[in-house]
Amino acid sequence: MAYEITGHTVLTGLLGSPVAHSISPMMHNEAFRQLELDYAYLAFDVGTDNLKTAVDGLKVMGVRGFNLTMPDKNLMCSMVDKLSPASEIGGAVNTVVNDNGVLTGYTTDGIGFMRAVSETGVDIIGKKMTLLGAGGAAAAILIQAALDKVAEISVFNIRDEFFTRAEKTIEKLHEKTDCKINLYDFSDPEVLKKEIAESAILVNGTSIGMAPKTDRCIITDDSVFRKDLFVFDVIYNPEETLFLKKAKAAGCQTLNGLNMLLYQGAASFELWTGKEMPVDIIKEKYFSR
Amino acid sequence: MAYEITGHTVLTGLLGSPVAHSISPMMHNEAFRQLELDYAYLAFDVGTDNLKTAVDGLKVMGVRGFNLTMPDKNLMCSMVDKLSPASEIGGAVNTVVNDNGVLTGYTTDGIGFMRAVSETGVDIIGKKMTLLGAGGAAAAILIQAALDKVAEISVFNIRDEFFTRAEKTIEKLHEKTDCKINLYDFSDPEVLKKEIAESAILVNGTSIGMAPKTDRCIITDDSVFRKDLFVFDVIYNPEETLFLKKAKAAGCQTLNGLNMLLYQGAASFELWTGKEMPVDIIKEKYFSR
Repeated sequence: MAYEITGHTVLTGLLGSPVAHSISPMMHNEAFRQLELDYAYLAFDVGTDNLKTAVDGLKVMGVRGFNLTMPDKNLMCSMVDKLSPASEIGGAVNTVVNDNGVLTGYTTDGIGFMRAVSETGVDIIGKKMTLLGAGGAAAAILIQAALDKVAEISVFNIRDEFFTRAEKTIEKLHEKTDCKINLYDFSDPEVLKKEIAESAILVNGTSIGMAPKTDRCIITDDSVFRKDLFVFDVIYNPEETLFLKKAKAAGCQTLNGLNMLLYQGAASFELWTGKEMPVDIIKEKYFSR
Repeated sequence: MAYEITGHTVLTGLLGSPVAHSISPMMHNEAFRQLELDYAYLAFDVGTDNLKTAVDGLKVMGVRGFNLTMPDKNLMCSMVDKLSPASEIGGAVNTVVNDNGVLTGYTTDGIGFMRAVSETGVDIIGKKMTLLGAGGAAAAILIQAALDKVAEISVFNIRDEFFTRAEKTIEKLHEKTDCKINLYDFSDPEVLKKEIAESAILVNGTSIGMAPKTDRCIITDDSVFRKDLFVFDVIYNPEETLFLKKAKAAGCQTLNGLNMLLYQGAASFELWTGKEMPVDIIKEKYFSR
């Protein structure tokens, strides 16, 4: 199929640092090509020091929107005209839509997570979730799960800056949703065991176990894994972390973070174009190993 | 040939208003594809009010460079760190190169003209030229011709703002080159006739005769055309203006502005990539009707 950039082609892209390794340009450009949409998606290595300058430039250049990755996700909140509920609660933006100079910030990571889980046939709405971690990915999952009516969420984290930030996020979620959320110190194995036992889904939202440190696992007591527990890891490199291997060995249904990555992109794509991303083609072409 | 935008692809582009109709995106992207260079070229509708904001943004986004068209060519001069001799003399920039945050402004229109003429086999170096007009395209031709050692140039224009600007340009050219340049009021047909009679080349650098007003012609006295006069028109739509038709009827060798357009692009391309544009392929694909 012919696919050619002309004077009418509209720019979209990714801001962050580093970004050159990102799969997003391939994903979005292939989807534009498949649907014959006249957009292009490029990555720009821009850190927080230059974010405002880049965003002001992109706005007057008439781009349709852009993604943000680290370290720009939080700072971006202060540069948009409007925020989605999830971005407002979490103080993070991974997708900006430019409507003729009016910028709206969204966060689609949590949307990606919910779609990835729902697609497996496992229903977590109205159920309890145990979530390990409170960093960027974990916070996005927490917020969207609460907004989407997961009934209870038990968050475990060490007492670092993210613990403090999670307290504030949870406060906001309690104001805006009916989800019962508890934040626990990760250092208490008994509480962790009890919460997982009551949960329908266990999520690793940390980077523990990610390549190259693939011998690490966030769970040390393998007895927490039981057949009817759905186990999710945000990590997709390696494809199967030690965490997922152990869960699978115990008979759990498992899923890695690859579809979450794909579907957060699909959600951005839809915000920009109003069209559904042809995810099967993208998956086959860029997400299979 | 596979051609895919990835996270490594470097942006180049065009700023101006309007720009959507421009042939430049097709030209440059095809050349990148042909040489397997990892760049993309997009057009951005940016007028002078937003030029500074867009340029600041493009700089921190790490673009390799960009073209300027109307109305941004003159204002751009004040936003670069360095200027080529031709840009400094003319106060216009159509190409910016970004070397890690240091912007250099060039003007390649005149280079395109000189290459287009030279390619026909006609040698105008050391000869005399009559140039009709003193606007943007005409000024670019004047400056590059003088820098490239055309011996004498007689410029004709009505007494408008461009006449005044041309006086200053010519002053600078007399300081920096040995070219003998005279500026004449276009309203004197006898002087015009005499200057053309002494010239090896006659150039229409105005938009008179351009579509849709194709019945207009800058020359009213057809007797100025003689067999050994080379006649050039910056216009390429229509492909053959009334001016060129008359010249051809009188036996003159003629050339329209299409190759000037192509070669100014080729010169920009070379400034950004250090590679020669595959002009034959571009010509065949985008410049044939």
